[in-house]
Amino acid sequence: MTRAATLVAATLLGAVALVVTAPAAPAAVREYWVAAVPATWNMVPNQRDAIMDVGYDPSETVLPTVVYRRYTPGWKRPLRNVPRGSSNQDLIPGPLMHARVGDRIEVHFKNLDRVYRRPHSMHFHGVGYKPSSDGAYLPGYSGRDADVEYGRSYTYVLHALRTSVGVWPYHDHSPSMEESIAGGMYGMLSILGRREQAPDREFVVVMAPMGRFQTIDGRAFVGNTPVFTSRPGQLVQWDVMAMGSEHHTFHVHGHRWVTADGTDRDTQTVGPAESFRIRWREHDPGTWLYHCHVETHMMQGMIGIYRVTQR
Amino acid sequence: MTRAATLVAATLLGAVALVVTAPAAPAAVREYWVAAVPATWNMVPNQRDAIMDVGYDPSETVLPTVVYRRYTPGWKRPLRNVPRGSSNQDLIPGPLMHARVGDRIEVHFKNLDRVYRRPHSMHFHGVGYKPSSDGAYLPGYSGRDADVEYGRSYTYVLHALRTSVGVWPYHDHSPSMEESIAGGMYGMLSILGRREQAPDREFVVVMAPMGRFQTIDGRAFVGNTPVFTSRPGQLVQWDVMAMGSEHHTFHVHGHRWVTADGTDRDTQTVGPAESFRIRWREHDPGTWLYHCHVETHMMQGMIGIYRVTQR
Amino acid sequence: MTRAATLVAATLLGAVALVVTAPAAPAAVREYWVAAVPATWNMVPNQRDAIMDVGYDPSETVLPTVVYRRYTPGWKRPLRNVPRGSSNQDLIPGPLMHARVGDRIEVHFKNLDRVYRRPHSMHFHGVGYKPSSDGAYLPGYSGRDADVEYGRSYTYVLHALRTSVGVWPYHDHSPSMEESIAGGMYGMLSILGRREQAPDREFVVVMAPMGRFQTIDGRAFVGNTPVFTSRPGQLVQWDVMAMGSEHHTFHVHGHRWVTADGTDRDTQTVGPAESFRIRWREHDPGTWLYHCHVETHMMQGMIGIYRVTQR
Repeated sequence: MTRAATLVAATLLGAVALVVTAPAAPAAVREYWVAAVPATWNMVPNQRDAIMDVGYDPSETVLPTVVYRRYTPGWKRPLRNVPRGSSNQDLIPGPLMHARVGDRIEVHFKNLDRVYRRPHSMHFHGVGYKPSSDGAYLPGYSGRDADVEYGRSYTYVLHALRTSVGVWPYHDHSPSMEESIAGGMYGMLSILGRREQAPDREFVVVMAPMGRFQTIDGRAFVGNTPVFTSRPGQLVQWDVMAMGSEHHTFHVHGHRWVTADGTDRDTQTVGPAESFRIRWREHDPGTWLYHCHVETHMMQGMIGIYRVTQR
Repeated sequence: MTRAATLVAATLLGAVALVVTAPAAPAAVREYWVAAVPATWNMVPNQRDAIMDVGYDPSETVLPTVVYRRYTPGWKRPLRNVPRGSSNQDLIPGPLMHARVGDRIEVHFKNLDRVYRRPHSMHFHGVGYKPSSDGAYLPGYSGRDADVEYGRSYTYVLHALRTSVGVWPYHDHSPSMEESIAGGMYGMLSILGRREQAPDREFVVVMAPMGRFQTIDGRAFVGNTPVFTSRPGQLVQWDVMAMGSEHHTFHVHGHRWVTADGTDRDTQTVGPAESFRIRWREHDPGTWLYHCHVETHMMQGMIGIYRVTQR
Repeated sequence: MTRAATLVAATLLGAVALVVTAPAAPAAVREYWVAAVPATWNMVPNQRDAIMDVGYDPSETVLPTVVYRRYTPGWKRPLRNVPRGSSNQDLIPGPLMHARVGDRIEVHFKNLDRVYRRPHSMHFHGVGYKPSSDGAYLPGYSGRDADVEYGRSYTYVLHALRTSVGVWPYHDHSPSMEESIAGGMYGMLSILGRREQAPDREFVVVMAPMGRFQTIDGRAFVGNTPVFTSRPGQLVQWDVMAMGSEHHTFHVHGHRWVTADGTDRDTQTVGPAESFRIRWREHDPGTWLYHCHVETHMMQGMIGIYRVTQR
């Protein structure tokens, strides 16, 4: 009863609650051209854990793997792996895909994994789709969407529904899922309401183990993990998710955020394939830490720097 | 303050929010006759993991254990272990016990564990009761409720309170708790509001390790775990809980649900003895996967099929 | 949209929702004098697990460590480690620090760790502060706040903001963080709204591993963990947090509480550095168990007694 009442309260007050910042754009078709491509990945490019003052040899930190990368139409040419409006450098997650409620998203996927020649796929959370765009391997039921062979392509058709507002994972769900996710075949969708204000800064934070390290976006230890930046007055948004087999607690120093239930938090659990977005209007200049508060994870590299500068 | 405000909002709007689908039934006494009985349990009856294409020998998958089973009054005759309205086959969890707010529930429990002759008990979450119905062993304090010897019986008296709406675990909390829970001595309560609509389909999902596998209702891998079914238009309810020592993330493909805080999710953390119910009006025909998104758990069997058919 | 609506509902109804129990006190400055001091700690003073009937030798349960302890102004004299209004005995967590929204908190910290002579610090969750009071070690950026040498002191200046209502961890975040937290260098802040009612009973519950045990406030097994007590009619508050690398599920027998989203729970996940407060008006006399429902944790000692007596 209390639960239902809360939802009704939300509905009755919905018209008031809408943060109308822009006229509703007409529903769009958003096309993404993505490929699975081999990569030689260094989880610790500066070869050290600066906080514990420990060095690492490249033999411990470099890993051959396969990642999702964005391409120009027809997979003619790879695009730089830096989402617009993000502070991300070249990192493990595939392209951050944006849409608004009502949009249709078409993801044209091609398997260019010429090294391992494993099958791959894309499985999307949060959006609406028919079983033929599910991308999850189930013998006797699933089709080509779940088992895209090397050299082949497949187009996933997705719908940003009213229930899709938020941030969501996508990842490989083909027969090679286990190795592929361990190697970094994941990325995020970010869906806004029809008239919802877009953030000034949007940070992708994927918490996942990789080899012997605990990584953020495929990097371990401050100086390697992304340095997120903003200025006072900006609306910042953190897109947080986890992949793998462990639960994490995402923490940002010197800040708090309001969760959907109205409570203020500065630390929040996120388990495998869970995802949430965190927003605040920035007003705390400084060089801050963000990290997983699971201590062993923090010690294995799951920590980075968030810098708020006046200028 | 925000938190308190949310609750008041819920209260003020309560009268509007009630989904009144039936006249309030008079408060009832619900009696359940349950026994702890030995069972020889096969976690993987078809002896294979169809997705990874791996076979298992019965020597790896069969386990002698003790489970809760429903009986006719006076423990005269065991009842089939298939809750009405559920898609469950014969599975590990004890009977799904239903009540509405205001009801008194009497659970008559008998220890028929003639194989191990261990003490057993029943401890119920979510409902109101006196210490004498707690069922939890504490030397110097607890009574016969917590330590029912082989051949003995005990009646637990429980109250479905206004704070009891939802789904809840019950499980052994006697001196044999550790082995008994590992072997499957658990089940669920499902409490509706006085006038709340009952679902058309109700699925019990207990996520728990068993031997070397990660099971749903005591079964591992698609083809062994329950195949839940529904039709478009039906109100489906998933009763999800975990037992054991691990956290899980429950995920259903192609669907989202609204959590109590108003956010839409398709993946949700559930830790040991946590429980939640998920509801939606079905409208997505197809053969879908549901699974724990903790990857090692999924690979060890915590995955099943949910089928929505037009006819 | 639903999320925003809920927040607006909360805001609109805020005036009604305020539980006004006292005139707003003028904002205060709250000073705490705290030191890091060596301690020889016995996790199992009665040397036994009463539930499993197993004995332990002091060689297995005693640990030399460093803890936070409250002092009189100028660190002249240590104060008894028993927060007012709490049922805590001498336990591992440092002083429970109280404030109300609008207050300024000054924590004067001195490193008296004469045994190990490690650097130490205090990092506070939930409150507002400048980077110079962050207390977290980051080479090249952090200052003396994050690396207080033996014999030195530092004053942290904290602000109880509107977003600070609730309970929060504090802990060592210096270069010795890993060993220091494992040894118990943590405590809690409890922030009330300006006019919010203070509880009659307030219980600090820190769930953390220590050596081979899983402890509550540094103690393992019933008879060693704190015995919390209350009377019917009292407003009781549980301040729950976790430290370390594991997730827990906090459970109290025979009781339920309302979470911020309006749902009733009797079991709730808490991960490292997460924290929440639980409140209810007591009306269930009896000797009850509270424990972590992760079974291995419960078996390793994370369980205690809550006693509600009529008199």
